[in-house]
Amino acid sequence: MAGNAVKIAVDGMGGDRGPRVAIDGAVMAANQSDYELVLVGREDIIKRELSRHRVIAGRISVVHASEIVGMEEAPVQALKKKKDSSIAVGMSLLHERKVDAFVSAGNTGAVVASATIQLGLLEGIKRAGIAITYPTIHGISLLMDVGANINVASEHLLQYAIMADAYAQCVLGKKRPAIGLLNIGEEESKGTDVMKEAYKLLRDSSLNFIGNVEGRDFFTGKADCIICDGFVGNIVLKMCESILETVVYLFQREMTANPISKIGALLCKPAMINIRRTTNYEEAGGAPLLGVDGHVIISHGASSAKAISSGVKAAGQAVESNINEHIVSAVASQAKPQEYKPFISNHTRPAKEAS
Amino acid sequence: MAGNAVKIAVDGMGGDRGPRVAIDGAVMAANQSDYELVLVGREDIIKRELSRHRVIAGRISVVHASEIVGMEEAPVQALKKKKDSSIAVGMSLLHERKVDAFVSAGNTGAVVASATIQLGLLEGIKRAGIAITYPTIHGISLLMDVGANINVASEHLLQYAIMADAYAQCVLGKKRPAIGLLNIGEEESKGTDVMKEAYKLLRDSSLNFIGNVEGRDFFTGKADCIICDGFVGNIVLKMCESILETVVYLFQREMTANPISKIGALLCKPAMINIRRTTNYEEAGGAPLLGVDGHVIISHGASSAKAISSGVKAAGQAVESNINEHIVSAVASQAKPQEYKPFISNHTRPAKEAS
Repeated sequence: MAGNAVKIAVDGMGGDRGPRVAIDGAVMAANQSDYELVLVGREDIIKRELSRHRVIAGRISVVHASEIVGMEEAPVQALKKKKDSSIAVGMSLLHERKVDAFVSAGNTGAVVASATIQLGLLEGIKRAGIAITYPTIHGISLLMDVGANINVASEHLLQYAIMADAYAQCVLGKKRPAIGLLNIGEEESKGTDVMKEAYKLLRDSSLNFIGNVEGRDFFTGKADCIICDGFVGNIVLKMCESILETVVYLFQREMTANPISKIGALLCKPAMINIRRTTNYEEAGGAPLLGVDGHVIISHGASSAKAISSGVKAAGQAVESNINEHIVSAVASQAKPQEYKPFISNHTRPAKEAS
Repeated sequence: MAGNAVKIAVDGMGGDRGPRVAIDGAVMAANQSDYELVLVGREDIIKRELSRHRVIAGRISVVHASEIVGMEEAPVQALKKKKDSSIAVGMSLLHERKVDAFVSAGNTGAVVASATIQLGLLEGIKRAGIAITYPTIHGISLLMDVGANINVASEHLLQYAIMADAYAQCVLGKKRPAIGLLNIGEEESKGTDVMKEAYKLLRDSSLNFIGNVEGRDFFTGKADCIICDGFVGNIVLKMCESILETVVYLFQREMTANPISKIGALLCKPAMINIRRTTNYEEAGGAPLLGVDGHVIISHGASSAKAISSGVKAAGQAVESNINEHIVSAVASQAKPQEYKPFISNHTRPAKEAS
C-alpha cells in the first residue's frame, strides 16, 4: 500500500450526473470508512463542491486534471487527445503507486483502455474483464465480462473464470464458488466454437465448473460466477438494470386501477422497498476491472453518490484482500502444460445450429 | 390453402411434458376455432389421449408417425436416424401442402433443421430465424432471432429485420414498426464488425430503423422489433422467461414476512394476476420460424395445453395473413443493387473495445 491507510483515487469528473455526485459519494465514503480519498479532476470545480461538505480532516485531497473524457467519446481517440484527463491522471497515480486503487464512473471504454495501457495486464493474463456482482434469490452472484472485451477467445473465458473465482473467494467470501458458462443450452455441444472450446478448458481446470448455464439460471443463484463474453454480458447487464423498473411500473399501474388494490399496495410498501433494496445495483457498488495490474473499480455511468461510495468500499476490499496476487498465482497454477489445451482464436460460428 | 378450412398439423409427441399436453392443446384449439387439426405421432398414444375429450366432429384427424425426436437429441443426427419422427412427418405434410401450417413444441433444433431441409428457404432468404413476441410496458414487441442461427452475417440481420417488419405489420397489425438492432451502445461505432455492418445495411434500407437499442430498452417498447443473433436472442429470451418467476418469488418471500404485508398481498392479488397475464409467455403462443417455405410455429418445450392452443392460433394467423408472400416481396424490393452493400462474413470481433 501507498501509506498506512488505504488510499483511493476517485474520478471527480466521471459519470452521467456530473462532478457533484462523484464528490458527494467520495465525501460519504471518507466519513464512513478509514480510507484516504484523492479526488482527481478540475480543482476549481472539486473545491467548490467540497466546500458544501464537512469531512474528517485530512481524509480528502485533490489532484488537478484539466481535461474530461465525455461519456460518448470514442475511448482510444479521447485518451490520445486528452493526456490530462481525470481518467489518465487517476490511472497514473495508481501506476506510480501513489494511491492503492482508482474508482471511476466515467466513460467505461476509456477507463478500460487507460487501465490496460497505463497499468498493463497482470502476469499471465491475456485480457482484462469487468466483473459485476448482482442479486439472485440465493444471494450475490458475479457476472463476467460485462463489456471490456467483445472479442473473446476460449482462453479468455477460462481466465475470466479464474479471476471471477478468485474474486468470489477473496472478496465475496464464497468457498469453492460454482462456475457456469453462459450458453444456449446445457449440453457440451451447444453454442459457438469458442463456447465449446471454453467448456472443455473449464471442465479440465481445477475450478468448480458446473457446466453451461442458460438465461433462465441467471437469477436462481445456481452459479456463483457466470462467465460470458463482453457483448452478451453487457446486454444482459443492462437488461437486468431495467427489469425492476419495469416490474415496479407494472405494479403501480395495476395498483392504481382500483381502490382495494390501492390499500393493498400501501400495506405492501415496506415489502416492495425490501425487494428494491435486494435488487438495487447501487448497493452492490462498482464493478472491478480484473486482470490489470492495479485495483480499478468502474462505477455505473448513472451512479448516485451512494453508488460511488459503494464503489470506494469495493475498491478498499479489493486492496485489502490482495485479490491481484491471488489471481496471478491462480493463473500460474492453472497453466501447467498438461492441463492446457490450445485455445481457438477463430471466432467463426458454426454454419447452422439451433437450440 | 389445402382445403376450404385452414388445416394445421400439430406435433403430438413434442414438448417436455409429453403427448397429453400437445393433444389437450390441439383439442382446445379445435373447439375454439374453425381450423381443422391434424395430430401427428404415435397413433395408439394419440387416440388414447383423444378418447378423454369431446370435440366437434371432423375437426381432428391423426397421421401416424412411429418415432419421436427426444428434447435433448442432437438435431441433425436425430433427423437422419429417425425418418419417421413426428417432426419429419408433420413437415412432409406441410411440404406436400396437405396442411397449411405445422406447430411443434418438440426439439427446436430438429424443427429448424427439418423445416430448412424439407421445406427449403423462401426466395431470396439466406437464413431462417425464430421470432418471438413478448410483452413490454407499451404493448407487444418482437425479438428475432432467438436461436435458429448463431452464426450471423450482417445480411442475415438485415433479412431478419425485413421478416420481423413484415410479421409485425401483417400479423401484429403495427404500422411502420420501429426496428432496433440489439447492441452494446447506441452509437453506430459500437459492437462487433457484423453489428457495425448490419447498422449500415439497416440505415440504408427502407425500414423504419431507429438505430441500436440496448438491454435497457428491452421492456420499454421503444422498438417494435428487436433484431439480434440467435445466441444473444436465446440467452435474453430465457432470461425474460425467468424474470417474472423471480419477482413473484421475491414478492411472496417478503409478503409472508409480517402479517400486515400478508393482508396487503391478499388485496393485491388481482393486480398480481393481471401482471402475470400481461407477462405470460403462454398467452403469446408460439414463435414463428420465419424464412422457410411454409408456416412453422415453434412452441416452447415447456408449453402447456393453453400455449399449444395459442400456437395453433398463431399458425392460423400466419396462414391467413399470407406472411410469406409479404416477406418474399419485401426481400425482393430491398434487393435493389444500389441499396445493397457487400455483407461481411468475417465474424472476427475487433481486438479490443468496450462500452
